[in-house]
Amino acid sequence: MITCSSSESVNPSPTTKTYLKLPSRCSSIGRTSVTFQSCRPLYRSSISVRKKSIKPYQINATAASIGQDVENRLQPGSHQILDNGNSSKQKRVMVIGGDGYCGWATALHLSNKNYEVAIVDNLVRRLFDHQLGLDSLTPISSIHNRVRCWKSLTGKTIQLHIGDICDFEFLTEAFKSFEPDAVVHFGEQRSAPYSMIDRSRAIFTQHNNVIGTLNVLFAIKEFSEECHLVKLGTMGEYGTPNIDIEEGYITITHNGRTDTLPYPKQASSFYHLSKVHDSNNIAFTCKAWGIRATDLNQGVVYGVKTDETEMHEELCNRFDYDGVFGTALNRFCVQAAVGHPLTVYGKGGQTRGYLDIRDTVQCVELAIANPAKRGEFRVFNQFTEQFSVNDLARLVTKAGKKLGLDVETISVPNPRVEAEEHYYNAKHTKLIELGLKPHLLSDSLLDSLLNFAIEYKDRVDVKQIMPSVSWKKIGVKPLTVPA
Amino acid sequence: MITCSSSESVNPSPTTKTYLKLPSRCSSIGRTSVTFQSCRPLYRSSISVRKKSIKPYQINATAASIGQDVENRLQPGSHQILDNGNSSKQKRVMVIGGDGYCGWATALHLSNKNYEVAIVDNLVRRLFDHQLGLDSLTPISSIHNRVRCWKSLTGKTIQLHIGDICDFEFLTEAFKSFEPDAVVHFGEQRSAPYSMIDRSRAIFTQHNNVIGTLNVLFAIKEFSEECHLVKLGTMGEYGTPNIDIEEGYITITHNGRTDTLPYPKQASSFYHLSKVHDSNNIAFTCKAWGIRATDLNQGVVYGVKTDETEMHEELCNRFDYDGVFGTALNRFCVQAAVGHPLTVYGKGGQTRGYLDIRDTVQCVELAIANPAKRGEFRVFNQFTEQFSVNDLARLVTKAGKKLGLDVETISVPNPRVEAEEHYYNAKHTKLIELGLKPHLLSDSLLDSLLNFAIEYKDRVDVKQIMPSVSWKKIGVKPLTVPA
Repeated sequence: MITCSSSESVNPSPTTKTYLKLPSRCSSIGRTSVTFQSCRPLYRSSISVRKKSIKPYQINATAASIGQDVENRLQPGSHQILDNGNSSKQKRVMVIGGDGYCGWATALHLSNKNYEVAIVDNLVRRLFDHQLGLDSLTPISSIHNRVRCWKSLTGKTIQLHIGDICDFEFLTEAFKSFEPDAVVHFGEQRSAPYSMIDRSRAIFTQHNNVIGTLNVLFAIKEFSEECHLVKLGTMGEYGTPNIDIEEGYITITHNGRTDTLPYPKQASSFYHLSKVHDSNNIAFTCKAWGIRATDLNQGVVYGVKTDETEMHEELCNRFDYDGVFGTALNRFCVQAAVGHPLTVYGKGGQTRGYLDIRDTVQCVELAIANPAKRGEFRVFNQFTEQFSVNDLARLVTKAGKKLGLDVETISVPNPRVEAEEHYYNAKHTKLIELGLKPHLLSDSLLDSLLNFAIEYKDRVDVKQIMPSVSWKKIGVKPLTVPA
Repeated sequence: MITCSSSESVNPSPTTKTYLKLPSRCSSIGRTSVTFQSCRPLYRSSISVRKKSIKPYQINATAASIGQDVENRLQPGSHQILDNGNSSKQKRVMVIGGDGYCGWATALHLSNKNYEVAIVDNLVRRLFDHQLGLDSLTPISSIHNRVRCWKSLTGKTIQLHIGDICDFEFLTEAFKSFEPDAVVHFGEQRSAPYSMIDRSRAIFTQHNNVIGTLNVLFAIKEFSEECHLVKLGTMGEYGTPNIDIEEGYITITHNGRTDTLPYPKQASSFYHLSKVHDSNNIAFTCKAWGIRATDLNQGVVYGVKTDETEMHEELCNRFDYDGVFGTALNRFCVQAAVGHPLTVYGKGGQTRGYLDIRDTVQCVELAIANPAKRGEFRVFNQFTEQFSVNDLARLVTKAGKKLGLDVETISVPNPRVEAEEHYYNAKHTKLIELGLKPHLLSDSLLDSLLNFAIEYKDRVDVKQIMPSVSWKKIGVKPLTVPA
């Protein structure tokens, strides 16, 4: 009758102390008996601690489309490797930061593609929201309910290792028990404004990101030396040079001699800098230890729906629109939905690479399916289109009109230190060559962004929208948030 | 009768809790009554905790030459700034890591040049020696005795702030009480092999160096925004590219467009990487906050004597010849002195920039006297000559012959991962343009290096000479040193 999975599917090795121990609430059942209603009780319990409860119409609406769709969306694995014998072996992928925005979508996608997935996460992203008084536009379930629901829907187990990768003892246990073939590392503090709130958070960001990644490198060297590290970097590492941005390396001829060298980096927040530090550390270990690594320099991600998260509301991904974690395009859509002017920072000529979250999961899968060689430090620029902030404002305004929204745009003082008018041309062909089929913004804007924002607009807290963090005013005192 | 300074000269503000509180052992006296003998009791007490006592002949020999020389070496200040009135104001320089090899020589040099100097140091370099069973070739006094002796000899006070710059509360107090015009930052774990001993020490190195430097940047922003940061980097940040190495930046023309960008970095140990991270962090704060900074990418330093450390044996600098902290040339001289073959790692074609420690102190002074502008991130390559390891071995062999030493050279397996034959041509003109007058190795090798090593050869522990740390074998378990 009830459909969540037992604790055993979450914790196949209860003797491992770092595993999450869940109380067994109900017996597991097969995939075929899954219906939307069966997951409902869990979902309700998971949102009981949230500030705003989801509206019934949303539950029903989601249920209707999901119930019919689940089987169609379960895709056969494309990555199975033949063993010496006839048996096939699933590739084991550890997704660090698998409870976050990109991480959760990726974990589900890989599980759906028949990879054996383990999520490693300390859930600190949820703590940030509590501490700063922020909330996802979408109601999100606890990670425990998320993976139980996934098991119920698909029969697939996603292992859960709750803990901090800066704690090497914890990470060791996770590596030894899961034995990953690939590690996808999203497990970092990923907001530039967060890293610029105050000294403590700047230090936290660099410590957490750099030390966590070092630990992952040591764990791979020690416990899984063939393991492929797929590390999320950012296009922001490059800054905005006045020459074309290449993918990781540039060939320079200087005083009559030529070499291919790491592309110069000019990061513009303590967060972006932490990713530069990571890239340098990883490159060294590839050379010194033979680590195989792919650095995905990701652009700004927009959207929220993927094939898998759409299967059930309890799988719904987070959607940040606030001034700290919200990214430009997602925030604009929310602003348009609630009648708030689009807030362009400064002149709005800031140009960046963007991609749909459905392409994030596709890119990660492509990187895993085509691993780097031993000792190779491979860099892919992971985005599909370039836009300036003004471009985005125009696109959202135009799309809003089609939906009858009257969208205004205002310029607000730029809280960041960055060029507001600059050359920008970044290469991004390597993932296309591996088979990436991009979702373009023009096709997604109305459906998966604006309509989505409108659907949830009653959950918007307009106080969260405006930028509250200044690059220049950051001080040494811990900032607290007024109630 | 007795000549060390009172606690007051070390601690002018006894109410500041982070200041070191020293018991008042004796009254201070003027400079004119200083003799070598007067400092002797302090010196003896300081070496009572060391493993090997200094031989009487060394004390006497040093005493003879120093006694006559002290007054001649006290140099008039060249940096005094005229206030609006007639009074002149001393520039205040905080030397972080002022108890270390380069830091101590620099602190004395600046004090001698009439800068007001405060040393900030947590003395952890001395702990590393204890933990690894290593020792300086030269017997070194405690930092407390060092500054007392300096006060006795010259009448000049060097403030002492003992604490960890990773502790921001401590650093805040040091900044607020001293109000530096310039900060010279040597306060980092500075050994590549140390950073490659085990995971803990790799993590320690990056945490300590990166977070310490971030704290210094925040302290400057918050408490002394006009303060000039003079940060010790390393030539090792650049690696060994196949093109000329420029000073910090390179102008690149690419696909018809041109920009001047940070020179690409290819560091080859967790230590070197930490310096790259620092450089990137500092560059950002110059841009975002208007910090003025000079990054001194220093080559390999050799020698031990400076005008100031020679004044008294109690001011003697450390001299490391061991496999962890010893640098190539210093180690070769010790090997030659004790009849140990010179140990060339691998093929010996590894080429680097080198400089005499007397040039280190000169360079730092030049940087301070000619500060960077607000918002400027200035990079100087701080070395005077390039040599390959084989060059050094040949030079030491030749110089050894003149002293009747039969010097052998052997190749040992390279513990590092590095190119052993490569192009190397690094620019180093900016400090010359500011007035640097280099001491060249050909002039220093016999006097200040080989003869010096011979003088102290009875203190050599040959077990410390061979490399004990492998870039490839570094593991996750803490390494301990057998007794």
